[in-house]
Amino acid sequence: MFQLIELFAVLAGATYGVLLARRHRMDFVGVFSVAFIIAFAGGTLRDLFLDRHPLFWIKHDEYAVIVFVLALVTSILPQIPSAVERWLFVPDALGMSLFSVVGAGFAIEAGTSMFIASLLGVVAGTFGGVIGDIVCNQIPSLFRPATPLYATCSFSGCWVFLLLRKFGVEELIAVIAGLSVSVVFRFAAIHWNLCLPAAREEAQNDE
Amino acid sequence: MFQLIELFAVLAGATYGVLLARRHRMDFVGVFSVAFIIAFAGGTLRDLFLDRHPLFWIKHDEYAVIVFVLALVTSILPQIPSAVERWLFVPDALGMSLFSVVGAGFAIEAGTSMFIASLLGVVAGTFGGVIGDIVCNQIPSLFRPATPLYATCSFSGCWVFLLLRKFGVEELIAVIAGLSVSVVFRFAAIHWNLCLPAAREEAQNDE
Amino acid sequence: MFQLIELFAVLAGATYGVLLARRHRMDFVGVFSVAFIIAFAGGTLRDLFLDRHPLFWIKHDEYAVIVFVLALVTSILPQIPSAVERWLFVPDALGMSLFSVVGAGFAIEAGTSMFIASLLGVVAGTFGGVIGDIVCNQIPSLFRPATPLYATCSFSGCWVFLLLRKFGVEELIAVIAGLSVSVVFRFAAIHWNLCLPAAREEAQNDE
Repeated sequence: MFQLIELFAVLAGATYGVLLARRHRMDFVGVFSVAFIIAFAGGTLRDLFLDRHPLFWIKHDEYAVIVFVLALVTSILPQIPSAVERWLFVPDALGMSLFSVVGAGFAIEAGTSMFIASLLGVVAGTFGGVIGDIVCNQIPSLFRPATPLYATCSFSGCWVFLLLRKFGVEELIAVIAGLSVSVVFRFAAIHWNLCLPAAREEAQNDE
Repeated sequence: MFQLIELFAVLAGATYGVLLARRHRMDFVGVFSVAFIIAFAGGTLRDLFLDRHPLFWIKHDEYAVIVFVLALVTSILPQIPSAVERWLFVPDALGMSLFSVVGAGFAIEAGTSMFIASLLGVVAGTFGGVIGDIVCNQIPSLFRPATPLYATCSFSGCWVFLLLRKFGVEELIAVIAGLSVSVVFRFAAIHWNLCLPAAREEAQNDE
Repeated sequence: MFQLIELFAVLAGATYGVLLARRHRMDFVGVFSVAFIIAFAGGTLRDLFLDRHPLFWIKHDEYAVIVFVLALVTSILPQIPSAVERWLFVPDALGMSLFSVVGAGFAIEAGTSMFIASLLGVVAGTFGGVIGDIVCNQIPSLFRPATPLYATCSFSGCWVFLLLRKFGVEELIAVIAGLSVSVVFRFAAIHWNLCLPAAREEAQNDE
């Protein structure tokens, strides 16, 4: 099951990457690289931090082929239909939630504490996008105030999964519950524009 | 002893991260993430480069809890007293020096040459801040000319520690000496605004 | 032989790093750091991804000394002769090609598929420059459209090497063929300004 989930997460991340790269008018190499980074960076950090080898995209080498084909096909398309971009938040939310719960699951299996497992889930779920934004030279949206909740949804989903698992709920059900909470929370955050308040520090000495 | 030193280093890094994030008006997630990155990135690179597992913040899972609480408390505070910001260079210098000497010590124990150990000390001591700056989308202050010496202090402290250790001085004394040199050098650099000269290359073709 | 190749690649990367840092008017620490990052980052990612320890620059500790001396000498020079900068593309193309083919070779020896090996070759060959650009706070030239082919040359060289190797050609010959294709392709790309077309997406909603 985790296999299928991971594949969906990779696809969602890569699609998001392709669109981000096209918005920056990159060529095919840029599109593929950004798609690859967004789809794989979070899980790679998870694997490196937990010393899991071979890395998931080295082990499942079909993932990279899929991202390659996706980038190639979308590069040939003259234009991405704007509807795709409008609905992009759906695969993005799915990908983030899937990587988060799977990441937390791998971490707790490796023997970390629950808090560390939830953090690794958030890293796995959100750092693909963070590194993608850094590569495109913009402050990662994760760190910008007044953007709808994102890491918070990932964090909540991880905790729902971890707590259910701890109280003996079957793994599959715990995964589905964590996933659902994260995805629904994210959709709600987008729909009602839920934000955390920004730090109220005076910023006079801001550069 | 290294335990206590590392805890101080983490606290100093996290405090600096919180203030940096607030200056960029980030929300709680941003504040926590930047604090986490600045406190843990240097040591994580050290552990990954030396193949030390589990990573120090996975092993000592209380560190992440402490950073979380620190970010939470400071997010609730309406304003950080400006005195804190004025004295921030003290924990920052301590954190940098502590991570540097501990990093060099771990490296030399892992069997690297002294030069490599001093470089890993500098990476451990300074790359939290470098990655923090990258995440906030500014050129890392480490690489900007006309800023007071920073990596140079870390490098000097590492060498004092490594040379004393090589000549048979007791480890504790070597650590304290290396630390003191690094911290005092950094304070002196700030006080007298000691800088390295910038490269004198003509920059007409600078973009 | 791989030893000598790697040394050349490190030298080429470090030289490029020194010039990039001087263009940004960095001081000695900045120059050394950027030279170090550009020379070692690609190979470090390769080693971490393939779980090769100790990392190549920890094992061959003379590399770091060489980069240090190079950065020191060039920092003392009042000015880099502009001829050096004009011919810089030669060591850059060599370094990129060398790291690419060596990286692909290490990957295929570690048992990855050919496609993954070619990607790891591209990462090893080009990510030093990508991370160097990120550190200098500019969009990596790898991802900018309308720049001459770069990653594509690396990718082609890796495939020539991998295919020849697969069909039983002697390793040395496969390496030389891969290298030559990559270097010549790169020179041709610069000379005739060969680019991939940028994505034709409308960018009205670009920020």
